[in-house]
Amino acid sequence: MYDKNNVFAKIIRGEIPAKKIFENEYALSIEDIDPVASIHALIMPKGEYAEIYDFVSKASVEEQKGFWEVFQKTAEILDLKENFNTLTNSKKPPFFVQSVPHFHLHLIGGKKIKNLTNW
Amino acid sequence: MYDKNNVFAKIIRGEIPAKKIFENEYALSIEDIDPVASIHALIMPKGEYAEIYDFVSKASVEEQKGFWEVFQKTAEILDLKENFNTLTNSKKPPFFVQSVPHFHLHLIGGKKIKNLTNW
Repeated sequence: MYDKNNVFAKIIRGEIPAKKIFENEYALSIEDIDPVASIHALIMPKGEYAEIYDFVSKASVEEQKGFWEVFQKTAEILDLKENFNTLTNSKKPPFFVQSVPHFHLHLIGGKKIKNLTNW
Repeated sequence: MYDKNNVFAKIIRGEIPAKKIFENEYALSIEDIDPVASIHALIMPKGEYAEIYDFVSKASVEEQKGFWEVFQKTAEILDLKENFNTLTNSKKPPFFVQSVPHFHLHLIGGKKIKNLTNW
């Protein structure tokens, strides 16, 4: 089911450039190319997981620990241990639609730039 | 810093009733009392963590595994393995403010009832 041609898969494979914030063996974080606030990072596993349920139910303990380490380090690098929104979307939910079918967690802080819509 | 008198701490201690969805040694999920969509659950650790950064940086591996097990089981019980929004807020972020100072993850699916505001 996983689409290997999604943009985050290409970033993970190094085929598309991105501004990396932190990276370990299992996950990485990048700056969002279309930020909704002055700080807007994306944390994603390197493994092929389309959304958070896939990740939580299928990823190994090491992959999950690695993912949350990247979350933690990214928050520290961005000086965002508090005062942030964290969200992730799966396919077509009641609110914001998932635009890229690779699990990614939005970490949003600082000053609002625009309203949240689908992304 | 953790406020032991917040409403989720009282629910966890059994001092206030709540509609529980799933529970294990480390975490539980409940129905949100003021849902923004037809399915709106809250997943929270039983330990004293004010927000996700605290939880990720301080909780043991067992607590973190237990938390994500509750997330997974709750999604399965609610038939919400896809088509949902997941979010958690820390204090005063650019968008939705954290209203209860105990880490809780919103799991939102089904039909939209009202707009997201602070909660």
